Amino acid sequence: MAKKEIISSSTSNIREISISEFFSKNRHLLGFDNPGKSILTTVREGVDNSLDACEEAAILPEIVIKIEQKSENRFAVSIEDNGPGISKEHLPNIFGKLLYGSKFHRLKQSRGQQGIGISAAVMYGQMTTGKPAEIISKLPRAKTVSRLRLTIDTKKNAPKVISETLFDDPHWAAKKSGTLISIEMEGAYSEGRYGVLSYIRRTAMSNSHAQITLVDPKNLSHHFPRLTDTVPIAAKEILPHPHGVELGTLIQFLADSRGKSIAKMLTDEFCRVSDATAAQICKIAKISPTMSAVTAGRTEAEGLYNAIQETKLLPPPTNCLSPMGEESMLKALHWLFYESKKLDEADLISEPSKANQGAFDFNKLGKGSLAIRKSAELVAEDGVVLSEENGYFMTAVTRPPAVYRGNPFQVEVGLFYGKDLKADALAQVYRFANRVPLQYQASACAMTKSVMSASWKSYGLQQSKGALPSGPVVIVVHIASVWVPYTSESKEAIAHYPEILKEFKLALMESGRRLNRYLRRKHRQADEAKKKGYIEKYLNPIGDALQEILEFSAAEKAITLDKLEKILERSRGKKTQSKDND
Amino acid sequence: MAKKEIISSSTSNIREISISEFFSKNRHLLGFDNPGKSILTTVREGVDNSLDACEEAAILPEIVIKIEQKSENRFAVSIEDNGPGISKEHLPNIFGKLLYGSKFHRLKQSRGQQGIGISAAVMYGQMTTGKPAEIISKLPRAKTVSRLRLTIDTKKNAPKVISETLFDDPHWAAKKSGTLISIEMEGAYSEGRYGVLSYIRRTAMSNSHAQITLVDPKNLSHHFPRLTDTVPIAAKEILPHPHGVELGTLIQFLADSRGKSIAKMLTDEFCRVSDATAAQICKIAKISPTMSAVTAGRTEAEGLYNAIQETKLLPPPTNCLSPMGEESMLKALHWLFYESKKLDEADLISEPSKANQGAFDFNKLGKGSLAIRKSAELVAEDGVVLSEENGYFMTAVTRPPAVYRGNPFQVEVGLFYGKDLKADALAQVYRFANRVPLQYQASACAMTKSVMSASWKSYGLQQSKGALPSGPVVIVVHIASVWVPYTSESKEAIAHYPEILKEFKLALMESGRRLNRYLRRKHRQADEAKKKGYIEKYLNPIGDALQEILEFSAAEKAITLDKLEKILERSRGKKTQSKDND
Repeated sequence: MAKKEIISSSTSNIREISISEFFSKNRHLLGFDNPGKSILTTVREGVDNSLDACEEAAILPEIVIKIEQKSENRFAVSIEDNGPGISKEHLPNIFGKLLYGSKFHRLKQSRGQQGIGISAAVMYGQMTTGKPAEIISKLPRAKTVSRLRLTIDTKKNAPKVISETLFDDPHWAAKKSGTLISIEMEGAYSEGRYGVLSYIRRTAMSNSHAQITLVDPKNLSHHFPRLTDTVPIAAKEILPHPHGVELGTLIQFLADSRGKSIAKMLTDEFCRVSDATAAQICKIAKISPTMSAVTAGRTEAEGLYNAIQETKLLPPPTNCLSPMGEESMLKALHWLFYESKKLDEADLISEPSKANQGAFDFNKLGKGSLAIRKSAELVAEDGVVLSEENGYFMTAVTRPPAVYRGNPFQVEVGLFYGKDLKADALAQVYRFANRVPLQYQASACAMTKSVMSASWKSYGLQQSKGALPSGPVVIVVHIASVWVPYTSESKEAIAHYPEILKEFKLALMESGRRLNRYLRRKHRQADEAKKKGYIEKYLNPIGDALQEILEFSAAEKAITLDKLEKILERSRGKKTQSKDND
Repeated sequence: MAKKEIISSSTSNIREISISEFFSKNRHLLGFDNPGKSILTTVREGVDNSLDACEEAAILPEIVIKIEQKSENRFAVSIEDNGPGISKEHLPNIFGKLLYGSKFHRLKQSRGQQGIGISAAVMYGQMTTGKPAEIISKLPRAKTVSRLRLTIDTKKNAPKVISETLFDDPHWAAKKSGTLISIEMEGAYSEGRYGVLSYIRRTAMSNSHAQITLVDPKNLSHHFPRLTDTVPIAAKEILPHPHGVELGTLIQFLADSRGKSIAKMLTDEFCRVSDATAAQICKIAKISPTMSAVTAGRTEAEGLYNAIQETKLLPPPTNCLSPMGEESMLKALHWLFYESKKLDEADLISEPSKANQGAFDFNKLGKGSLAIRKSAELVAEDGVVLSEENGYFMTAVTRPPAVYRGNPFQVEVGLFYGKDLKADALAQVYRFANRVPLQYQASACAMTKSVMSASWKSYGLQQSKGALPSGPVVIVVHIASVWVPYTSESKEAIAHYPEILKEFKLALMESGRRLNRYLRRKHRQADEAKKKGYIEKYLNPIGDALQEILEFSAAEKAITLDKLEKILERSRGKKTQSKDND
């Protein structure tokens, strides 16, 4: 068939590739490589956006996720929030254009950062079902609700609005504000470790200020109550730090400076550069601070770059970070692995009902709330919680902020050790980045590597070489950063930057030492009980023997035994003490 | 400082992100996350392009890689080939625009496929040194040589040509054709497993038709001779297969069909669709084959899509694939792990010299060439090579082509078992995709997972749970495909598509069974020798005893012993045989 013949030469058919084309062919890069994961990725991207939007608007999030089965392998996935809504002009691009958004061009901790996720879900739905996505949005105090149906023109990477109407609906009329995205797609709904429910459970754990409901394909509602009534302090946006800027970027700043002097450019574009610091940098570089920045060539730029490296500067401000915090982590661990187990599972699930969307009365969860309040009281000052009678230990470590490639970041580790967990299983590792749970690609992740690299044997746990430790342990790892270095656009694992590995190592060591102290105390108590038993067991025979040899009266025997017991106890105590000082 | 205050709301600052901006911030996605890897990635992208270009033009590749140290952490990396060159109109975009190229929009096996790699290296050089990249190119039979210096405007993702001149140089005047790219960048030169030299060694192994020279920062030249003089049969481009096409793509094809009928669109855009097949599909879909394709709506598209799934079709043509082949793999394994070890390392390294670029006389490598010819003779018909006297075994399995998401692919496994390798170490796994060695992210790769999942214990090797087998083994795994599903743009690991995992499983099982047969034979031979020794050892004492009991003459004793030996040998033989039939 001549018509199908294709001439192949090194320059024929060379052309531009649209980013949408690229990702539709490489959809596994975005987390759409299998039906089960595709639904999970869609939910995650939707929930990420909802939580980010609520946080920026200081709204306590109420999120409802609904997964409806349309046919054997087709599902409608919708995510509804009570966020601030999105204005009509931005709606099409936000949902219908890859690489578009507000989060990429700023240094601020947020869940989304690429401007790809939710449009990728829209594209995946369209690729597999041909159907447009539906978006409903209401701005605060708005009298009308917008309803949009759109697809993506993949060749142009641009939204194609199919219809745009006003939505007249009592539920939305009653709502203050919010956004709903609904996408029909090929998929599979799975439960278990990699499923949506597991993801929501972990999201609730790392976002204790959010109230989340999942309506699953069986029309069962799973409710996750809010554990705290305060919105996390919103992270601040910062300017880049001079020590993290590369020569190429500096050249770009100079070229874009529009008539500014070099000193002014430095103070305007970077954090931690005062007028005095700018003058100092220029002095080291032997460049006049009043020189017009646009006229600087590569040589001047290199001089400035080297001068910046030589200049001492304050580290970047850290109010751009919003870690979970030790107290929150402890509360969440306690809730997840202790208190919630005491609740009947049914308490958190409601029966199918027509009006279940958002209609669940979270106040009914009295037991849950009580548990939270109780667990709050448990939190000790040093981040260690012991509950001897219940046989568990937990601790949390939030490291001070650090910097990689100029980006501030902060790591946290939480550890729960308890008798309800399996003693012979590998430790469970819960990974989080900017409060988002990561479920896939554990083996590719720097956080998993950090846990594996710690020497758990010296902290009292079993560990095979190159493996996770084993024991009744859950380890929570979290990185908060203005820019999380994911290993792919699907945001499933963290790249192995040495600065990040180091911080995790320190946090894990501290948690490990605390665990070790607990385990040693536990073992010592067991030892002491055993020794005390020995003394009691042998004291009377010794007394009888002494009475016989020295012809003691009963009273003399009693006094001697009492003295002997005290001496023995004291020497045992000393031994234990000296062990402690080892 | 009020000037630095930034108003943050959910709709402020929403804008488009250029793909160059995206990747300059996410450079680890492209393999530029640390200085050592950055040099390796640059070399790899350059060599990939050179090998692809030579293959398309049916040229035997001669490639010279030069890495020059400019200062402590700054290097100039250049890759020169004898490929067909690139025409002046395409030069700027090929090297100065991300997502641009000829390989993305076609289904054909090639090393590059994204149109990102080499421009990303240019961008990285520019980000870290501010310097433009230099490109020299000569078209076949051209009288002039172009020399270009360019940077990338990252905000626009477009090339910015700094200078464009004719290059008057005797070396280039003498060359038939070729391209050179030279980039100055921050980096670190490392040797060892993840280094450039290791990469080149593996590339030479999987591209035995290429002659490659690496001039390292110490100005030592490492030469890798061509092992075969035939260019691999170039893979053909194919049209998409209907069974791999999704509804969304089908809708796109219909919309783009420009006045064609549905039947014509189907036969034109897909492989394996004849006029009769097209008519059959339309019949099942209850759509007229003469209906204008552009007028088809989503309902018609869905009807066609379902009809395609129901229609039996030939699998896609497989001349789009170019595996290494069992013979080449065996030759390469033999060369790498046996013959090349007998060569003095110095034979492949030449001293610094001013004219070492391409001036090495590869014919001097007599020993190497001899080894190749010898190893060629060793190749047996069933893909198994045994060399008892040298104590090694090797085998290679090339699976028949299979299909994932409509993309033809083919997997291969090579296995070398030999006494020179460490017996107690973990197996070494050499991963390749479209003949490109993959060095990083082994733990994230579907190929590593396949090797770990095979039950090596039943093939005679040691293996801990969830680990690689251990023993004196090198396992080579290769996937050849019209579209390799990498887990990130840095092309370091393969995504876990079930169809791919299955094919590797089958190839690994077959190799494992062959290895097992060899190991059992080896053990059996050792056993037999031992048993034969027992018979010989005890025969004479038995003879003496019989002589004494039965009063045999010396002759009677000799006859009886002879008979006894035969019977014992026969029963031993039977036992061994019945073991074989187990």
